[in-house]
Amino acid sequence: MAGSIFGTNIRISTWGESHGKAIGCVIDGFPAGMELAESDIQKLLDRRKPGTSAATTSRKEPDEVEILSGVFEGKTTGTPISLLIRNTSQRSSDYSEIASYYRPGHADYGFDKKYGFRDYRGGGRSSGRETAARVAAGALCEKLLEKMGIKVVAYTKSIGDVEIDYDRFDEEKRLILPTAMPDEEADKRAMELIEKCRSEKDSTGGVVECRISGVPAGIGEPVFNKLDAALSGAVFSIGAVKAVEIGDGTYVSDRRGSENNDAFVSGDTGISKKTNHAGGILGGMSDGSDIILRAYFKPTPSIACEQETVNRNGEDIKISIKGRHDPVVVPRAVVVVESMCAMALLDLLISNISSRAENLICFYKEFIK
Amino acid sequence: MAGSIFGTNIRISTWGESHGKAIGCVIDGFPAGMELAESDIQKLLDRRKPGTSAATTSRKEPDEVEILSGVFEGKTTGTPISLLIRNTSQRSSDYSEIASYYRPGHADYGFDKKYGFRDYRGGGRSSGRETAARVAAGALCEKLLEKMGIKVVAYTKSIGDVEIDYDRFDEEKRLILPTAMPDEEADKRAMELIEKCRSEKDSTGGVVECRISGVPAGIGEPVFNKLDAALSGAVFSIGAVKAVEIGDGTYVSDRRGSENNDAFVSGDTGISKKTNHAGGILGGMSDGSDIILRAYFKPTPSIACEQETVNRNGEDIKISIKGRHDPVVVPRAVVVVESMCAMALLDLLISNISSRAENLICFYKEFIK
Amino acid sequence: MAGSIFGTNIRISTWGESHGKAIGCVIDGFPAGMELAESDIQKLLDRRKPGTSAATTSRKEPDEVEILSGVFEGKTTGTPISLLIRNTSQRSSDYSEIASYYRPGHADYGFDKKYGFRDYRGGGRSSGRETAARVAAGALCEKLLEKMGIKVVAYTKSIGDVEIDYDRFDEEKRLILPTAMPDEEADKRAMELIEKCRSEKDSTGGVVECRISGVPAGIGEPVFNKLDAALSGAVFSIGAVKAVEIGDGTYVSDRRGSENNDAFVSGDTGISKKTNHAGGILGGMSDGSDIILRAYFKPTPSIACEQETVNRNGEDIKISIKGRHDPVVVPRAVVVVESMCAMALLDLLISNISSRAENLICFYKEFIK
Amino acid sequence: MAGSIFGTNIRISTWGESHGKAIGCVIDGFPAGMELAESDIQKLLDRRKPGTSAATTSRKEPDEVEILSGVFEGKTTGTPISLLIRNTSQRSSDYSEIASYYRPGHADYGFDKKYGFRDYRGGGRSSGRETAARVAAGALCEKLLEKMGIKVVAYTKSIGDVEIDYDRFDEEKRLILPTAMPDEEADKRAMELIEKCRSEKDSTGGVVECRISGVPAGIGEPVFNKLDAALSGAVFSIGAVKAVEIGDGTYVSDRRGSENNDAFVSGDTGISKKTNHAGGILGGMSDGSDIILRAYFKPTPSIACEQETVNRNGEDIKISIKGRHDPVVVPRAVVVVESMCAMALLDLLISNISSRAENLICFYKEFIK
Repeated sequence: MAGSIFGTNIRISTWGESHGKAIGCVIDGFPAGMELAESDIQKLLDRRKPGTSAATTSRKEPDEVEILSGVFEGKTTGTPISLLIRNTSQRSSDYSEIASYYRPGHADYGFDKKYGFRDYRGGGRSSGRETAARVAAGALCEKLLEKMGIKVVAYTKSIGDVEIDYDRFDEEKRLILPTAMPDEEADKRAMELIEKCRSEKDSTGGVVECRISGVPAGIGEPVFNKLDAALSGAVFSIGAVKAVEIGDGTYVSDRRGSENNDAFVSGDTGISKKTNHAGGILGGMSDGSDIILRAYFKPTPSIACEQETVNRNGEDIKISIKGRHDPVVVPRAVVVVESMCAMALLDLLISNISSRAENLICFYKEFIK
Repeated sequence: MAGSIFGTNIRISTWGESHGKAIGCVIDGFPAGMELAESDIQKLLDRRKPGTSAATTSRKEPDEVEILSGVFEGKTTGTPISLLIRNTSQRSSDYSEIASYYRPGHADYGFDKKYGFRDYRGGGRSSGRETAARVAAGALCEKLLEKMGIKVVAYTKSIGDVEIDYDRFDEEKRLILPTAMPDEEADKRAMELIEKCRSEKDSTGGVVECRISGVPAGIGEPVFNKLDAALSGAVFSIGAVKAVEIGDGTYVSDRRGSENNDAFVSGDTGISKKTNHAGGILGGMSDGSDIILRAYFKPTPSIACEQETVNRNGEDIKISIKGRHDPVVVPRAVVVVESMCAMALLDLLISNISSRAENLICFYKEFIK
Repeated sequence: MAGSIFGTNIRISTWGESHGKAIGCVIDGFPAGMELAESDIQKLLDRRKPGTSAATTSRKEPDEVEILSGVFEGKTTGTPISLLIRNTSQRSSDYSEIASYYRPGHADYGFDKKYGFRDYRGGGRSSGRETAARVAAGALCEKLLEKMGIKVVAYTKSIGDVEIDYDRFDEEKRLILPTAMPDEEADKRAMELIEKCRSEKDSTGGVVECRISGVPAGIGEPVFNKLDAALSGAVFSIGAVKAVEIGDGTYVSDRRGSENNDAFVSGDTGISKKTNHAGGILGGMSDGSDIILRAYFKPTPSIACEQETVNRNGEDIKISIKGRHDPVVVPRAVVVVESMCAMALLDLLISNISSRAENLICFYKEFIK
Repeated sequence: MAGSIFGTNIRISTWGESHGKAIGCVIDGFPAGMELAESDIQKLLDRRKPGTSAATTSRKEPDEVEILSGVFEGKTTGTPISLLIRNTSQRSSDYSEIASYYRPGHADYGFDKKYGFRDYRGGGRSSGRETAARVAAGALCEKLLEKMGIKVVAYTKSIGDVEIDYDRFDEEKRLILPTAMPDEEADKRAMELIEKCRSEKDSTGGVVECRISGVPAGIGEPVFNKLDAALSGAVFSIGAVKAVEIGDGTYVSDRRGSENNDAFVSGDTGISKKTNHAGGILGGMSDGSDIILRAYFKPTPSIACEQETVNRNGEDIKISIKGRHDPVVVPRAVVVVESMCAMALLDLLISNISSRAENLICFYKEFIK
């Protein structure tokens, strides 16, 4: 089955292995006429790029994107947009060893069982590198959403036990600080934790939060294609995510209805909610409040300390994984979460325009001459 | 956009409003030749049926299923299976009032914004009643999975702050106890909590856990159609779910890699894992261990105590919701989670049979004469 | 694989066997707010209904449709519309014999090879009766298209060697005459031919033509989802169709470019074409001219004269098929072709509304408050 | 809507404009473990390549394919296969003029109406060049089909009024002769006709026939995903196709049932048919006979003689199209038809493996350990 295509109205098809010639994606169904330059995409790719701080692997990957199709005279044409990112920092030698055994916490064993063999170089298709193609596609979606008045903002909420303080929340900081936290103080403490993990040949997990503002009420389809189901499925498709929650998330299970319900109130700009326990989604549809999503990432499974595992011959062995790995995936995963949310949301926004017959009729009677 | 169809290889299309003539589903693509009687389906439907205990609404809904197509001489034919459940316990009068305002915690407001109006009787399409159709479809999927050696078992893990004790775990109890807990003692305490909520005109949330055993390694597609992404999207499509986690879930964010990685070990029956923090899924594919998923449900939003809200004219009002509502949705939601997991898993199992060219070739050379 | 669902934005899921309890369909994604009564659907169903003239089988099937969901206070709600048609004229005894052998020209053999067995009563799922569900769904699509200014008109072009004369074309006649021809004189001669076939225990083929007017230019997606590809696939999914052509169709293969190209001309109402060899489609998109499609139907394979075939034991036998069969399927297939064209076109019209970024942005900035 | 992706189990996403940097495709879901080299693909691409004879344009396009992902150590890995073909022979100057007007017989007008503007260089996305990416994908599908014992063979049946004689049919000739005819004599006469067209600044149409052998009975899904519907939709997605027929095609409309039905007969190798009017498909499923499909192509719309049309300002003008164009598209389209048929068939073959529950169960009990 085709497992590398995301979306319905806009379909994003990613391809490529970490140590092949290149990675990339094809975006089919993107609306025509939006201004698009490679720099629009590069800006987001740079947020995912490794080697920029002590919080990430020391590997240098320029991750330069090339637009191969679908853009003419600076605008999207409505036809498939093919994006290419050459692989340049492949030290396959780092990985020659892992061909023979199954790394704990990795997809190696599943790949062998599923396909009979695997491209073992650097995780191949299951490498985090694949997400660069998602970010490239996400950049287009975020740009179009912004033009519709919708803003998708993801940031690191916590790394290990270090959590941000919302009183110090500074959105712009997430773009500058090495941890992608919006809180300078928390960032400092998180960097210390990261250093500690690295020195102990270990890794840590963390939480990414994504806040989406400007979404009109009624987006998302009742029943299976709920907005939360779509966002959750999109974010869970990022490797290392082990939990996704919306609004108050896991806390709701020990709440009373009277505490958890958000009261509707009227105001000058229309109906809104007094509180936002729901995280902006009710019955699978947006309710006009900010959408709040959190993704829980496990610690990087590639660690330098000794681990037990099994090799392809079924023998128990001990290993310690070499190579340059992120001590925590969260800082680089922030923009991936943002991208996946943007892709999922835009797809449902497009679906929504045919929800009312009168709109459809009006569109063809007035818009189209 | 068509939001009421689930799946790719097997497509399940549910329909119906809580207070219309009937609800039902069409299952397209279900393999031919499986024995199927209405009783196979009824067994699961009865686990969702209301009015069976103090843990649920006092409404009586027999929820009797009728097979209209796709079964011939007691076996599935490979063509669409249409299942019908008549609505019998509709007291529309209970709902005449809610036509005029937006119930907190419900989809009413989103429906109006999306479609311009709504079928307000009992929540209409967004009623929990819709899930009966899913359970009917899930019954078929569970039956086929069982024949493949795969067992899907969901149960209540907690209601409010009352949690089961795994030392007292008794799988069969979940089918008998009113809370669907597999622990008699916890069930008793949970029933007390439920009574308390009811007397206080309030409701509570809870957690459903689902354990799937017998899944071979390698199921799930790398990248977007990961097994966890599919399960999460499926379970999040159940109204009232606010968080989904796999394995250790949210806890991983504060773990070290050395703690969280599960070591592979060899044994008489092949490769397995020493621990199962991963909850049976690595890199989006099953790893041969049990799959563990938890869904966090919010408290029932329909509560009898007074709440603030807004009516369709945009005026602030106070309401208290009448009618017979579940003080907690979890006991009846257990079999819905089980069904959605079965549907999502079976779909990916079918996708998996074309993962290797040699299998495909062999299938057409040897199976098909 | 799920083979009984049609469409992308609006998904139509048909179900039912000719001799089961009922047939029906679920229409998911149909826009909200369109007035809909059972009579809107019945009108089209009656055009497919058998037993109304000597041109069809003498079987009486009232084909009364019941709306089970998705309509509230006389309007579509945006949620799945479930339509049910009870089977009433099942003489299974007519078919007991055919269980044992493979009827020439029918799907019997394929069904057995595919599924291992089949519901042999009256063709089961492959019965023409299944198309009643398509017509029911098509009625909704045609109604919405009409509100957008688009008219889909199908009629019988020929039966055997009897062809209509466009000089006598009278659109309304197709709704009255037994052959569904828009030409009274041709109808008379065709009825004679049909009588002749019947008396000879034989059957004949024919051609259905469909003309769609009012489609704005630019509908259809370049490359795979071309408008002609979608229409052709939709019409070829009707049993007994062996060829589909657009515009001048097969004739173009022996034409010169200078003859076949349609010149564009300007006029008061904008750009149009001098001729319409293209049948209203260029490069997979509508060009503003009428869309012309023809479907070629084979003669009814169920004939009363003696035929050779093989039984399920692999023995050569001679058979003559009993029962009440149409001597030609075309008159009843006309409205099926019309319905499939309407369904395919509406789906692409909806896709088209996101073709331009500016329209999408404007929609969310101005339409949605 | 995403219109550039084909297939369900295997999804083929093509991209690229004739005068952009490159064209290509991504093949998602292709089974793992098939040996694949660039030469396997090049072989088919060379059959589509222009500039090889007087039957085609004099443009030279080497059309060299590069595999960017999804192949490791000479075998497909099961992950997306990205194929790239650089554009090298772009004389954009040839096309600067056509920016301003709508070429008759082309998609220009539709593109402008749909997207607001277009990449006018050489037809952009609607250029026949896009089909090179389909052929690249088709090469993989054909190779896998061959390993399953299925052979897809397309050839030119006629050009203008010059038709092949089946008595002289030589399958290998179609790979050598400039017209792709399997008949040397017809080829000679067709070449004369082509020369005549060229000298008259005109073009001609033609017919491609495709014969598929080795398909087991039962492939194709009843109702909407019929094998003929899938093949027809696939072939109609090739620009310039105006009619598609299966088996006796248009001729069936004037046949009697007694003539048109193919009798089943038993034999040493099982059940077969005495004749093949049906073209190997009954009720939407393969019947074990050869599948016969014909596609009717219109004459190349780009002709050098004078034509009337309208420019973007809505003024009537006269044009004569410059540049190097094929006087007939058929010889180069043959391998495109073959590729589309292979893609559509393989997709349905994969769907078919879950048609029986017993096969599915057996697969997981015996194949997968």
